[in-house]
Amino acid sequence: MNKKYRLDGRIWINCGEYPSIGQGKIELLIKIREHGSLRQAALEMKMSYRQAWFHVSNINHSLSTPAVILSRGGKDGGKAVITPSGEKLIDTFLTIQADFEHFLNEQSLKPGLLEI
Amino acid sequence: MNKKYRLDGRIWINCGEYPSIGQGKIELLIKIREHGSLRQAALEMKMSYRQAWFHVSNINHSLSTPAVILSRGGKDGGKAVITPSGEKLIDTFLTIQADFEHFLNEQSLKPGLLEI
Repeated sequence: MNKKYRLDGRIWINCGEYPSIGQGKIELLIKIREHGSLRQAALEMKMSYRQAWFHVSNINHSLSTPAVILSRGGKDGGKAVITPSGEKLIDTFLTIQADFEHFLNEQSLKPGLLEI
Repeated sequence: MNKKYRLDGRIWINCGEYPSIGQGKIELLIKIREHGSLRQAALEMKMSYRQAWFHVSNINHSLSTPAVILSRGGKDGGKAVITPSGEKLIDTFLTIQADFEHFLNEQSLKPGLLEI
């Protein structure tokens, strides 16, 4: 196999009856933390406010305590705050993601994959 | 996070300009090896003969030597034979896949994921 080939993949947290939590939702949470605003986070993720709201609602329901607290009102349309539970979710996922990227790199460096 | 939650994911070989090779195409190759027939393999994979043929063609073009040799004719519509190159592709992928499943289980057993 040519050297331009490499192992790739993705991981997600399977949440039983709720939608899985993967890279996209974690990025949304990081944007929310950055801006303190669901609207701004949605804009940067190129998704509708409604779509972002549903993601946050699903994440909140799948955890034992919510990851994001939304408050209405104010001229910017309310605030969004990441809770300690949300912080832990972000940290845990990013740690696993880093381990996964390490795994992919390690596997790509094994002689077998390049010798197909 | 509830104990019913677990880490999940998938991996594939990124083949540059050619379509990626993942679990589905490897399963197709295994079925071809089992039956010696692309038609029978397609049937078991619940895909059309045409779709299976395109997958095999793409796999063959992305390797330096073909993974499958198709020969026409005969009452069963020709034979399909996995080459040593194809065997190596199957073995390499299954080995990486087993390592990946080990990775997922290890991560799921870490305390962090269940404590979100």
